[in-house]
Amino acid sequence: MTSTVDDTMRASVMTGVRRLVIEERPVPTPGPHEVLVQVAAVGVCGSDVHYYRHGRIGDFIVNEPMILGHELSGRIAAVGDGVDPGRIGQRVAVEPQHPCRRCKQCKAGRYNLCPFMEFYATPPIDGAFCKYVISDDDFAHPVPDSMSDDAAALLEPLSVAITTMRKAGIVPGSSILIAGAGPIGVICAQAARAFGASRIVVTDLVESRREKALKFGATEVLDPTVVDVTGIEPVDAFVDATGVPAAVVSGIKAVGPAGKVVLVGMGKDEYPLPVSHIANLEITVTGVFRYTDTWPAAIHLVQSGAVDLDGMVTGRYDLEHVADALDSDTDPASLKSIVNP
Amino acid sequence: MTSTVDDTMRASVMTGVRRLVIEERPVPTPGPHEVLVQVAAVGVCGSDVHYYRHGRIGDFIVNEPMILGHELSGRIAAVGDGVDPGRIGQRVAVEPQHPCRRCKQCKAGRYNLCPFMEFYATPPIDGAFCKYVISDDDFAHPVPDSMSDDAAALLEPLSVAITTMRKAGIVPGSSILIAGAGPIGVICAQAARAFGASRIVVTDLVESRREKALKFGATEVLDPTVVDVTGIEPVDAFVDATGVPAAVVSGIKAVGPAGKVVLVGMGKDEYPLPVSHIANLEITVTGVFRYTDTWPAAIHLVQSGAVDLDGMVTGRYDLEHVADALDSDTDPASLKSIVNP
Amino acid sequence: MTSTVDDTMRASVMTGVRRLVIEERPVPTPGPHEVLVQVAAVGVCGSDVHYYRHGRIGDFIVNEPMILGHELSGRIAAVGDGVDPGRIGQRVAVEPQHPCRRCKQCKAGRYNLCPFMEFYATPPIDGAFCKYVISDDDFAHPVPDSMSDDAAALLEPLSVAITTMRKAGIVPGSSILIAGAGPIGVICAQAARAFGASRIVVTDLVESRREKALKFGATEVLDPTVVDVTGIEPVDAFVDATGVPAAVVSGIKAVGPAGKVVLVGMGKDEYPLPVSHIANLEITVTGVFRYTDTWPAAIHLVQSGAVDLDGMVTGRYDLEHVADALDSDTDPASLKSIVNP
Amino acid sequence: MTSTVDDTMRASVMTGVRRLVIEERPVPTPGPHEVLVQVAAVGVCGSDVHYYRHGRIGDFIVNEPMILGHELSGRIAAVGDGVDPGRIGQRVAVEPQHPCRRCKQCKAGRYNLCPFMEFYATPPIDGAFCKYVISDDDFAHPVPDSMSDDAAALLEPLSVAITTMRKAGIVPGSSILIAGAGPIGVICAQAARAFGASRIVVTDLVESRREKALKFGATEVLDPTVVDVTGIEPVDAFVDATGVPAAVVSGIKAVGPAGKVVLVGMGKDEYPLPVSHIANLEITVTGVFRYTDTWPAAIHLVQSGAVDLDGMVTGRYDLEHVADALDSDTDPASLKSIVNP
Repeated sequence: MTSTVDDTMRASVMTGVRRLVIEERPVPTPGPHEVLVQVAAVGVCGSDVHYYRHGRIGDFIVNEPMILGHELSGRIAAVGDGVDPGRIGQRVAVEPQHPCRRCKQCKAGRYNLCPFMEFYATPPIDGAFCKYVISDDDFAHPVPDSMSDDAAALLEPLSVAITTMRKAGIVPGSSILIAGAGPIGVICAQAARAFGASRIVVTDLVESRREKALKFGATEVLDPTVVDVTGIEPVDAFVDATGVPAAVVSGIKAVGPAGKVVLVGMGKDEYPLPVSHIANLEITVTGVFRYTDTWPAAIHLVQSGAVDLDGMVTGRYDLEHVADALDSDTDPASLKSIVNP
Repeated sequence: MTSTVDDTMRASVMTGVRRLVIEERPVPTPGPHEVLVQVAAVGVCGSDVHYYRHGRIGDFIVNEPMILGHELSGRIAAVGDGVDPGRIGQRVAVEPQHPCRRCKQCKAGRYNLCPFMEFYATPPIDGAFCKYVISDDDFAHPVPDSMSDDAAALLEPLSVAITTMRKAGIVPGSSILIAGAGPIGVICAQAARAFGASRIVVTDLVESRREKALKFGATEVLDPTVVDVTGIEPVDAFVDATGVPAAVVSGIKAVGPAGKVVLVGMGKDEYPLPVSHIANLEITVTGVFRYTDTWPAAIHLVQSGAVDLDGMVTGRYDLEHVADALDSDTDPASLKSIVNP
Repeated sequence: MTSTVDDTMRASVMTGVRRLVIEERPVPTPGPHEVLVQVAAVGVCGSDVHYYRHGRIGDFIVNEPMILGHELSGRIAAVGDGVDPGRIGQRVAVEPQHPCRRCKQCKAGRYNLCPFMEFYATPPIDGAFCKYVISDDDFAHPVPDSMSDDAAALLEPLSVAITTMRKAGIVPGSSILIAGAGPIGVICAQAARAFGASRIVVTDLVESRREKALKFGATEVLDPTVVDVTGIEPVDAFVDATGVPAAVVSGIKAVGPAGKVVLVGMGKDEYPLPVSHIANLEITVTGVFRYTDTWPAAIHLVQSGAVDLDGMVTGRYDLEHVADALDSDTDPASLKSIVNP
Repeated sequence: MTSTVDDTMRASVMTGVRRLVIEERPVPTPGPHEVLVQVAAVGVCGSDVHYYRHGRIGDFIVNEPMILGHELSGRIAAVGDGVDPGRIGQRVAVEPQHPCRRCKQCKAGRYNLCPFMEFYATPPIDGAFCKYVISDDDFAHPVPDSMSDDAAALLEPLSVAITTMRKAGIVPGSSILIAGAGPIGVICAQAARAFGASRIVVTDLVESRREKALKFGATEVLDPTVVDVTGIEPVDAFVDATGVPAAVVSGIKAVGPAGKVVLVGMGKDEYPLPVSHIANLEITVTGVFRYTDTWPAAIHLVQSGAVDLDGMVTGRYDLEHVADALDSDTDPASLKSIVNP
């Protein structure tokens, strides 16, 4: 079942390190339990930037031309077998995962860890800097009319933040230290406030970023070159959104007994951690790899006003200017860029 | 309330690095809610050995003469106010903790993390290589007649192993990798089997120790110089009982998605961990610092035959030969030494 | 250590069913780790009313004259041994519990279930309708200057609501049904909103109470005589704040798979529950008996504006009019009454 | 891909209450990700008996002819697309579930609660009293050669018991009360022992059944007409395997603070529970509805000797005598009957 959809579409394709070309590609056809989504807005993520500049993230290597972009919203343009045709025209935010649904991880409720996952904009799977994408029908989450396309796209990084708060055990009254006031740090500060944290300390080297953190939920900001976080009153949880080993080490040392550490920032594969401090205080250290079942919660947090996503957008680009969008992070005033295909 | 108790007692006192002297000391008097225990058996722990050889463990420094030993059993010789005098004569295993019972950690059920803890044989608190010790009445756990004094003393390291299994999430059907077949590795293997683990892989460099592991619960043993554990079928949990960074790194890489890592072995304060692997698989890394509410479970595991503690004893010493007991770990055939004051 | 404190004080003493007298009583002296609190405000709870009208709640029977009242705030007037004298003059909210700190429940972090608990205004322990009370120092929680005495007293019912939300598993995006829009139902609605619930359905027979619920957090209210809650979209959690069996049964049937049911309202000791529905959907049913570690979270929720306690106060009374305060619940316009001794 | 398989097969079909006929039916063809299993052994479950005698269980009504039986083992005879043909000939135990894998429950790891579940021998889905059945490939669990067909079939009720122990929170050292020494009570006693329970009290009216319980794991048995379980030392968990309201009520009252109650036995839809006791002790009450991820654990428990399934078999029947198998529960000496098609 389908409405009138074009046969081909324009796509911004990464053909090599720092190389993007506009290509005309066939519009894909939704299979059973799939929908075709006409893309409205796509957020630029640090991982997109990393692939663009380095051609790889760890073991994930861009060997073939690939479309970047995985934070997206749009409108359902066609549906496959087994999907209610009444969904055509529905505004949706796409959870960019396609797990196998059959493996041990999927059946245990951890589909984010499915070893057979096909994830948008992770080689060799194409992403969303193009006009149309395919999504599993249950991963195309309806969004209310009052939510903007931009906000709907940014439910994806908010989902990362929600998962982070869940793993950090944030509940009303918790205290949290967040290292880094980039997009992930800021959205984590917002999520921490929404989860009820009473003390939200954010560190960043750049003053303008610290100010952004204060605006978006931090109760306190610190310049880590001036204040040693290992000396502050211990926190219940530490979230690293920098990937910088020194920030991680001091952050861990700022955590109190039975505290939680969640590593969200991407950095080196291996670096020293303060093992004795972790063991003696029975701190738990873990990371976040995507998310499960976060979109409904994310939609509520935005709708209720607890989280402001529109206010985080600092730039908008069309398909011809994806390179500019990807390079916008070099401007410290930039927080979150959006591509509108 | 007290039975006939001596006024003074002999104690083996550590007066400096590798220096022990026998001293005559006053027998302490139990205060309210305390009991006086006549010591029957004391296990030698790696931390005793470390204090003896190095005079410190991390920030804990032996500045004053101190009695070592914290794995102990005995018989109640006197009771303080508020304790049933009928307990005099009772055989007990002592949980060597004295928490404040009032702080946030204590009230949250994590009394092992009490910042005001007074723990046996941790500077400046005396331990049990002597004839009498004081214990809180609720930490002097009655043991059945059928349990030997040695086994009752070794409920302490078994408590470490039980805590490790709880943190490692071991349930019937779990798989676990344990690095190190020393006393802690072996008792962890026993605990893993008792908790229902179906696959228990133990690594050690020494063949005779690997054989001990096989005897005490391992379903498989490996020489890590021959087999790379990162290549085996991923395990649900990894327990390090070596403190050796290389063993910890490869152990972590042997863990599958959402797996658990528990660091029990003492090592350097800080060393490199495979952070990307931890984050991408959402592995949780933590440590064990003592225990809460383990003695009843430990007693059951020994009574039911699920765990064999007597079989682990490879040497017995009197108070005059504590130094020999502390040095017995240099013999690879030695597994667990006991001091009988 | 003590400031100038009177020798005697006035107290409103319950001497029998519906009988209160003002007595002059000696001011108690704080023991070690205790503080003397000059009472500023005391909230009237349904259990106070129940004791007043029936002389008992289940197995707890008022056999001797007893002072009612257990929701209280005040100012520290004197301190016992081991307490910082600098606390004299500090404004506090009292957590009205005195657990043994030594039993299995206390050591497991469940001090609310301590079988040796001495709880304010639970026979034979006196409560707070008087000028001075004793509190354990760690249960006298400092409150910020900006918080009113009334709000500080009402941190106690808010603590019940926080515990309820924890047990109900409420996190951002949860849906909840609350039966009853009395004080507990309303404060639970507020807590549910603060914990991030996106859908908060409250039922009550009385329209004015339903309006109060809407004002204080409900997203939807229902008259259960008009709408059958078993027909609404299933909720993640159901909280009963009525104690009425019919409300409990239909509430349970409104819960979806793996949902949570928390019974807060006091009712009959035994009544029929829909066991098949519970079993087939693997619903968990439990109750709330007081709280552990809630005051810091409660203070944050009030300070941040997430919960409004002052707005719930509908009447104030002095010690001479405690009977009026206790009878104020018969007025449907009354929500929460305060006694100022 | 398929080996040589017959075109038709014999099946024992329930055509009405207490009516079974042998029919010749077409052998089904496995679809994608499915396997065809030649049935070796099928255990008789109380639910089969209930359908046979009453034509319904609650809202599940046998309106059309249906094949009973859902505890089964066999050998893979053919495989559908996407399944390794090398599995043909493999001995398997079948987990008789066919969830949708797409709904909220499935994605949360609770596929047992999938509202679109197709479960063997639950109207209108056929079961296994026949020669061949279809299973999802990942629900056909390979069993070791050393395990008998009977034991492999009885991994299903063992899975119920494992789920029960998980929900009851049984860990080494736990105490548990089990009401009823029928097949489920006995297998729960075995599972409790395997999970490390130190005290396993089983009640039954019939002496021979109490003796069976003692043989299979109980540490103590009681005749509830002689001993009131509310007077025994409180247990950590209570499991009801009777469905009898009086047993459930006294069992709940035998549970201590923060204890767990799991209702496994089928009984009336609604009956009185001791709500005050549940609330005042913060007991949690829930039920078991099938299982998730239990076969690997179950296989380990049988292989390690922790659980004895073969010893529970008291009768064997062929397809012509399914009625006798279904009626065998009227003999108190009968514990578990097997049908070999």
